[in-house]
Amino acid sequence: MQTELSEQLGVEHAIFGFTPFPAVAAAISRAGGFGVLGAVRYTAPDDLKRDLDWIEANVDGKPYGLDVVMPAKKVEGVTEADVEAMIPEGHRQYVKDTLARYGVPELAEGEASGWRITGWMEQVARNQLDVAFDYPIRLLANALGSPPVDVVKRAHEKGVLVAALAGSARHARKHAEAGIDIVVAQGYEAGGHTGEIASMVLTPEVVDAVDPLPVLAAGGIGSGRQVAAALSLGAQGVWLGSLWLTVTEAETHSRAVTRKLLAAGSGDTVRSRALTGKPARQLRTEWTDAWDDPNGPGTLPMPLQGLLVAEALTRIQKYEVEPLLGTPVGQIVGRMNSERSVQAVFDDLTQGFEQAVDRVNRIAGRVPQS
Amino acid sequence: MQTELSEQLGVEHAIFGFTPFPAVAAAISRAGGFGVLGAVRYTAPDDLKRDLDWIEANVDGKPYGLDVVMPAKKVEGVTEADVEAMIPEGHRQYVKDTLARYGVPELAEGEASGWRITGWMEQVARNQLDVAFDYPIRLLANALGSPPVDVVKRAHEKGVLVAALAGSARHARKHAEAGIDIVVAQGYEAGGHTGEIASMVLTPEVVDAVDPLPVLAAGGIGSGRQVAAALSLGAQGVWLGSLWLTVTEAETHSRAVTRKLLAAGSGDTVRSRALTGKPARQLRTEWTDAWDDPNGPGTLPMPLQGLLVAEALTRIQKYEVEPLLGTPVGQIVGRMNSERSVQAVFDDLTQGFEQAVDRVNRIAGRVPQS
Repeated sequence: MQTELSEQLGVEHAIFGFTPFPAVAAAISRAGGFGVLGAVRYTAPDDLKRDLDWIEANVDGKPYGLDVVMPAKKVEGVTEADVEAMIPEGHRQYVKDTLARYGVPELAEGEASGWRITGWMEQVARNQLDVAFDYPIRLLANALGSPPVDVVKRAHEKGVLVAALAGSARHARKHAEAGIDIVVAQGYEAGGHTGEIASMVLTPEVVDAVDPLPVLAAGGIGSGRQVAAALSLGAQGVWLGSLWLTVTEAETHSRAVTRKLLAAGSGDTVRSRALTGKPARQLRTEWTDAWDDPNGPGTLPMPLQGLLVAEALTRIQKYEVEPLLGTPVGQIVGRMNSERSVQAVFDDLTQGFEQAVDRVNRIAGRVPQS
Repeated sequence: MQTELSEQLGVEHAIFGFTPFPAVAAAISRAGGFGVLGAVRYTAPDDLKRDLDWIEANVDGKPYGLDVVMPAKKVEGVTEADVEAMIPEGHRQYVKDTLARYGVPELAEGEASGWRITGWMEQVARNQLDVAFDYPIRLLANALGSPPVDVVKRAHEKGVLVAALAGSARHARKHAEAGIDIVVAQGYEAGGHTGEIASMVLTPEVVDAVDPLPVLAAGGIGSGRQVAAALSLGAQGVWLGSLWLTVTEAETHSRAVTRKLLAAGSGDTVRSRALTGKPARQLRTEWTDAWDDPNGPGTLPMPLQGLLVAEALTRIQKYEVEPLLGTPVGQIVGRMNSERSVQAVFDDLTQGFEQAVDRVNRIAGRVPQS
């Protein structure tokens, strides 16, 4: 499965895998795809260094990349305390009441909330890049708009391609103008932050909008048929995130989350502002229902909502409070029904792709030769 | 573009076109596809008879079908007056106030509202079928659940295939159990009534759920690349509705609606209950905004909402009140940027399909022969 982009990056298959787990990223690259490590959780540069060292030792020399969360607009001199002070008391009380209703225990004294807003701040991402540019990464992706001009320049000087996610053609054109190399067209059905345009419509629209820049299709892809569809739509590869959440190599924090993912159908996700204040697709839970409840206070804008719920989510995850326990994931969760190795998932994708191509060739009246 | 289903129906291309306009349906069949006439607006059997006669005279002997709106559950002894009486006064006042705010003129005395609930009632659909079964229709589609068992039986006795729309795998399995022959998997991005699962995820899910029944993919399809994608996903054909709204053969009531469709982007639709009480994708307008406004009374359930707004929609259309004027349409509206003949649209679809197959074959390393 070779496109100009996969050839440029030196990978066998134009399958890009985004994952927060180093073991999964390395396994994706070893299997012939392109593993991309999500860096948002590395607030300490040494932790990122440790995990990139591990990938280097385990990737068999195959190429890989890094995904950061770097806001396009710089927020100067705003501390976490400033943001905390903007959260209304009524919202804090709603979090307390909701947790109390489900009997969610408190954290131990001095135990930190796992997720902090700092992971989303530009300086943190810049510290991550200072670490990452010492490694032979081939791709730098940004999940939050185009990266700043100096970052794009620095990446290009190092021979690193820059990718950015887009949920609309307008958004994609802005990326192209900012000098990025690859657009990831993220459809409505994708996990995490998404727009409202579904992949079937979005992918060719973005392809046409940024031509000749290569586009990766993201959202709704978890089988070889879907890979073939995305490539038919004009993408130069696919960008898969959700599918790796249930692979055996994933160092998932919670067995309960894995069980929920394996059991969920395609209709069990919701595009909700409950997590960050911007619409993000995730498992629908009684927690997301509480934030979408017209009788509740509703969500706050980014970054307030994320800060408001950070400690609550840590408690829900730590104590595995099933009705409230969720995770970002796309509609493809309906196909994630067993725990398999990355290699087994890859074999399924590539074989399914070949079968889909065979089938479409028969429909088109072609007699293909290998 | 030949699948088992297109061969069974004797059409050249596995492209099914749903349209309320006889001239469009006939042109689709003449172009080598399968035209399906939407019957919901034919409350008088003689009108349907007149238009089927016209199709017969203009379809060059090519096969075509009919789409009815037949509720799965029978509602006995309920008149339009009974339903009218269930509409709260506050909602009626909200309609009046909204129309007044935009200065929408009244209808002339005795002038009927164009759309009546009767078109959605089982007896009306049965009267339509009594007419249609005298014509050599090859397919009967139902937009509202599985048709009643006796209707499926009657169709099969006449050699007519029965299709039903589904927005989820569960829904599709119910159709299969009801003995229908074809499932139309209608994705989130489609125009009209839709569920929440996008075509990229829904199509293969429905294909697997009802195998070996053939599935047509609907939603987000308006180019050859999208046709290739849908067939890659396992569909035996595509079902296109929105795309024909702006063809030159369409007897559109309103030039203003056509102008709005040609100008709209993929982000200019909304899935709203404003039209019928069930979520249906349509152009976003100040009218749909008024019904989605948290300060308004909100929508009523089907069939109350449709009856509540029927006269208002007739007035908005008649006087072309631009800010309020909309129509059901899918996200593919972003590609509907010029008025072309059905044949030109068809040529674009089939040539684009061939190019997409060429491209995917190159990616797969195949050297296809014609």
